[in-house]
Amino acid sequence: MYCFNNDYSEGAHPRIMEALIQASLTQHTGYSLDSHTEHAKELIKKEIQRDDVDIHLIVGGTQTNLITISAALRPHQAVIAPETGHINVHETGSIESAGHKVLTQPTPDGKLTPNLIQKTLDFHTDEHMVQPKMVYISNTTEIGTQYTLAELEALSAFCRQKGLYLFLDGARLGAALTSLANDLTMADIARLTDVFYIGGTKNGALFGEGLVITHPDLKPDFRFLIKQKGAMLAKGFLLGIQFEELFQNHLFYDMASHANEMAMVLKKTFSECGFSFLSESVTNQQFPILPNSLIAALRKSYQFLDQQVIDDAHTAVRFVTSWATKEEAVRQFVSDFKTLADTYCSN
Amino acid sequence: MYCFNNDYSEGAHPRIMEALIQASLTQHTGYSLDSHTEHAKELIKKEIQRDDVDIHLIVGGTQTNLITISAALRPHQAVIAPETGHINVHETGSIESAGHKVLTQPTPDGKLTPNLIQKTLDFHTDEHMVQPKMVYISNTTEIGTQYTLAELEALSAFCRQKGLYLFLDGARLGAALTSLANDLTMADIARLTDVFYIGGTKNGALFGEGLVITHPDLKPDFRFLIKQKGAMLAKGFLLGIQFEELFQNHLFYDMASHANEMAMVLKKTFSECGFSFLSESVTNQQFPILPNSLIAALRKSYQFLDQQVIDDAHTAVRFVTSWATKEEAVRQFVSDFKTLADTYCSN
Amino acid sequence: MYCFNNDYSEGAHPRIMEALIQASLTQHTGYSLDSHTEHAKELIKKEIQRDDVDIHLIVGGTQTNLITISAALRPHQAVIAPETGHINVHETGSIESAGHKVLTQPTPDGKLTPNLIQKTLDFHTDEHMVQPKMVYISNTTEIGTQYTLAELEALSAFCRQKGLYLFLDGARLGAALTSLANDLTMADIARLTDVFYIGGTKNGALFGEGLVITHPDLKPDFRFLIKQKGAMLAKGFLLGIQFEELFQNHLFYDMASHANEMAMVLKKTFSECGFSFLSESVTNQQFPILPNSLIAALRKSYQFLDQQVIDDAHTAVRFVTSWATKEEAVRQFVSDFKTLADTYCSN
Amino acid sequence: MYCFNNDYSEGAHPRIMEALIQASLTQHTGYSLDSHTEHAKELIKKEIQRDDVDIHLIVGGTQTNLITISAALRPHQAVIAPETGHINVHETGSIESAGHKVLTQPTPDGKLTPNLIQKTLDFHTDEHMVQPKMVYISNTTEIGTQYTLAELEALSAFCRQKGLYLFLDGARLGAALTSLANDLTMADIARLTDVFYIGGTKNGALFGEGLVITHPDLKPDFRFLIKQKGAMLAKGFLLGIQFEELFQNHLFYDMASHANEMAMVLKKTFSECGFSFLSESVTNQQFPILPNSLIAALRKSYQFLDQQVIDDAHTAVRFVTSWATKEEAVRQFVSDFKTLADTYCSN
Repeated sequence: MYCFNNDYSEGAHPRIMEALIQASLTQHTGYSLDSHTEHAKELIKKEIQRDDVDIHLIVGGTQTNLITISAALRPHQAVIAPETGHINVHETGSIESAGHKVLTQPTPDGKLTPNLIQKTLDFHTDEHMVQPKMVYISNTTEIGTQYTLAELEALSAFCRQKGLYLFLDGARLGAALTSLANDLTMADIARLTDVFYIGGTKNGALFGEGLVITHPDLKPDFRFLIKQKGAMLAKGFLLGIQFEELFQNHLFYDMASHANEMAMVLKKTFSECGFSFLSESVTNQQFPILPNSLIAALRKSYQFLDQQVIDDAHTAVRFVTSWATKEEAVRQFVSDFKTLADTYCSN
Repeated sequence: MYCFNNDYSEGAHPRIMEALIQASLTQHTGYSLDSHTEHAKELIKKEIQRDDVDIHLIVGGTQTNLITISAALRPHQAVIAPETGHINVHETGSIESAGHKVLTQPTPDGKLTPNLIQKTLDFHTDEHMVQPKMVYISNTTEIGTQYTLAELEALSAFCRQKGLYLFLDGARLGAALTSLANDLTMADIARLTDVFYIGGTKNGALFGEGLVITHPDLKPDFRFLIKQKGAMLAKGFLLGIQFEELFQNHLFYDMASHANEMAMVLKKTFSECGFSFLSESVTNQQFPILPNSLIAALRKSYQFLDQQVIDDAHTAVRFVTSWATKEEAVRQFVSDFKTLADTYCSN
Repeated sequence: MYCFNNDYSEGAHPRIMEALIQASLTQHTGYSLDSHTEHAKELIKKEIQRDDVDIHLIVGGTQTNLITISAALRPHQAVIAPETGHINVHETGSIESAGHKVLTQPTPDGKLTPNLIQKTLDFHTDEHMVQPKMVYISNTTEIGTQYTLAELEALSAFCRQKGLYLFLDGARLGAALTSLANDLTMADIARLTDVFYIGGTKNGALFGEGLVITHPDLKPDFRFLIKQKGAMLAKGFLLGIQFEELFQNHLFYDMASHANEMAMVLKKTFSECGFSFLSESVTNQQFPILPNSLIAALRKSYQFLDQQVIDDAHTAVRFVTSWATKEEAVRQFVSDFKTLADTYCSN
Repeated sequence: MYCFNNDYSEGAHPRIMEALIQASLTQHTGYSLDSHTEHAKELIKKEIQRDDVDIHLIVGGTQTNLITISAALRPHQAVIAPETGHINVHETGSIESAGHKVLTQPTPDGKLTPNLIQKTLDFHTDEHMVQPKMVYISNTTEIGTQYTLAELEALSAFCRQKGLYLFLDGARLGAALTSLANDLTMADIARLTDVFYIGGTKNGALFGEGLVITHPDLKPDFRFLIKQKGAMLAKGFLLGIQFEELFQNHLFYDMASHANEMAMVLKKTFSECGFSFLSESVTNQQFPILPNSLIAALRKSYQFLDQQVIDDAHTAVRFVTSWATKEEAVRQFVSDFKTLADTYCSN
């Protein structure tokens, strides 16, 4: 049984594990004040070609979203997100638990645009309603799509004009930046957003998200918020060591590239067999729409999740590849899929 | 420069690191629904000789305190803690951030008693004040002291009579259960409290606290709360693997015993040189009261924290040992200390 | 300039003002523990023909919604509301400020049905999402519509089957219960919901909402929550005195009937002039869709609010009548409207 | 049975009731945007001789404290209060329910000083602890004492130097400003604090606190916060009308003076009979320490509250007078008290 459920089924890349072992019996300063974390921050600053940022390494994505958004907003302020945004759907109301409404707009492709944001602004006119103050986007999105440079520039200009903070959830930033469709650099993202993060958990680290704050208003006292939300790791050097490895020798990009390549093999297979997709993704999440009978047959040998019911006979499912996805497993899947597709879809 | 700042300066015990490496390239189910976590829970249940409990493995202590307390209380309810309790002082108002007042009593030794709790109850008489509903204690306490079986039985009986949940923070439970003064077992703690946790972070794991819920009212929907507070680790199997190691072959107790033994060597040294202590601790935290001149001299070779100013010339400082404290480092310290004490305290 | 903006433009009915004057120089027990409040509760119990309820008199509606919902839900739980629900739109994120997500469904008429609720339930399947636990409805709704007995019975049965609390916001309950379309009694509402309130502010009191809790799980410690949210009026007897008047001699119903009658005159006028409506309301809020030119002309003599842009030339506007709406003002409006409608709509 | 429990047992001064009646059948703009509120604000500005302030009229004191403090603080920030502060003890954890810790210092007289505040600051050194950002004081205090101009100037200078907002709870500001010991004006208070309020509830209004914000950082979006906390009164003109009366023709001061005078008669009586006091108050709250036998005898004819047990035979009790306290009732009390004191205290 091979599992395409997600990109966090395995531990970490061997180079990361090796680095953790190497440092394990040395004494480090606690709470992310150690030298590995310092070095990791330097590497990230080099990556984005800027020095005027605050960087915090945090264990998980929901935590990072919660801390960042609650640190930025006053009690009556709200965050705008696409309806499919992770903070809206899959974080158990974490943002609301910190007191803030998530205002959503339905989107065709998981992406926000100035027009969509304007619709929300138009509706919020006085003190009887919450005040939109931040925009939350993901790259890649929760359905595998990604922002182009032009799209992000437009969003950024719009948000700055309207006094909205722009926050980019980069839990799958590696997949975005290494996909065929990408024309963004990490430096672009730093330039165009007010705060964003670089996902480690879903790209080969044991855990860890590298939060980069560029807007000066979002910087003060951030470590207080990390601690208050229970997110200040005692052995913070574990995060530093992992991000050092990610940004030494291109490992972050290499792992994401591998995940995307494996996904492209799957995508080609689904396409060649004549299936369509829920979204246009060239990244490590693929959402083919398959006949339910074929899905059932595949599940005898493979794990993958349902995404959305399409009709009585078809479901969009989700296949996720990762840094750890084995080429031979993908080859076997291609072969199995073609055989089963012939059987279940021939008539 | 050797560091006695805390018990989380190093990574993890080699057996734990080895287990993490072994499992790193295997696929696991996410979010703590994997087989290692299942097995770790079985081992803990065996340890406490009970099967009717819910167990959750959570990354950090502040997080665990926050989730447990906010899951248990209604909005108007409060938790009673000793003034020195970790939730009162060192968690950046985490409990208040979830809406709950921490009611404190000063204590001579960091421990609560029925009498001290009654004083708080006496003061809270109607709906104009918060309603005390939970009691929070730590074992060992933040100043190295510990509860006896008789003390815990008295507290437990009192709390049950008053309808108060009893929650034991066991961030340093290993140190408590392996100290010379201990007459408690983990099964006693499970029997006498409503919820408690077994600290991994401060006892040789990379991170991880094993929360054990015995009271049925505290069990429902707990995973929702873990997720909402951003504490559901994607690669939850990392916690499972570590707790498997901790509770296989007695590693949890062996590591804590070593920490205590190293501390006893320090304690003996301080005593023999004629120094007194801020608290009566036979566990891995020692708080000698030293002359400031001696402290300054020691700091040329050793790191340790200030705990409390005693008078113009004396300060209580904190020395912490751990599973990783090296015997030769302690021996060197003893020798250095005796020399310096002779010099600075001779007159 | 006559104002149809809302039903809280004037003070209170003269009988209520008189009662307040009468009691003003007498000493009363504070915090709603006085004899007037006691008597008012008895009158309400008689009205709903039940004695096994808890009643609290609270100053305002947003407050009452906030207290009731936050008292009922655990941190991970959410409330389901129609998209037009007052708690979703017009309370500045009050429910979210207490930590809870408001889950909404679009509705044609401002009313929830079992089918609509089921759609929300279907989507919330595990601990990565909030847990729906309460259903919020308004009667009359925010767009003037109302529930029939059959509809409320269906909702009630559904909610009980699914373990959802049913909460009815009765800020305009008087208008609902006295409209031509009504087949509900206040006793029905008490029987079919778990908690509801009787609006005083929008029906002739200076302020005040009478909250009736029927479900035993929602009763404990409610006064703590009232106090904590800053809603325990020091001179709570002011609420008691007003509700005594409302439920002595049928004043509550008489005032609401008057408001509805005045609205029916407006409705007939709009209809006769050939205009359609945003919603089918026979209560004190009317939402005619009017040409923008006519609206501009009307605004020279009358105040009323915009509700929704329909197209470039038409807007749905809101006319609200109340206990205090003067018959001669309505007559004058009818005459003015017909004249203007002739002018602006003749071609 | 005459009641000295508090200063909010009666309704409102006849002039206030008369004004409410006069305006009751007129149409007013809702939500405190009416002309009476506008006028009341002008009167208050005249009183404090400043125009550069924001003023909000809010129903109750707990509400006002909650809104003001939660509007001012970021999530990790805390408010410093005397241990006896109303927000610490008698508001059911309202401040904590909004996420903020109340840091307290014991005081001999219910008043904070720079030294006491410095003790709290000294203790809060890094991001593992909350960050003190606001100082909360009451004038008069909860035990009837009051600040002198010199004391308030010292506090103000200290807070400004330390970057702490200074917030004065004036629920009983009338009593403070009209007492024999007073050397402050309302203009002084506006000058020396960042935000304060003028209590109506405890000084002859039906309800209402006039919040005056002088610090520019505390002004933005304040009405959003009022609404979100459920404190925006639909018929806000009721507040405006009352504050107009309070600040026309000196009514606010006259009522408070009367309350203080009546209290001075009580104080003189207690003193002449040889009793001491819990606090040195020349305002409308008096806390004599009386023998329990005498207390029991007094309670046959008078209501008053216990404040604090002194020893087995003595209790400090609280007598409160108000604008409505009748001179003949006080005369009767004096006579009764002297008789009973003779009987119960003769030996």
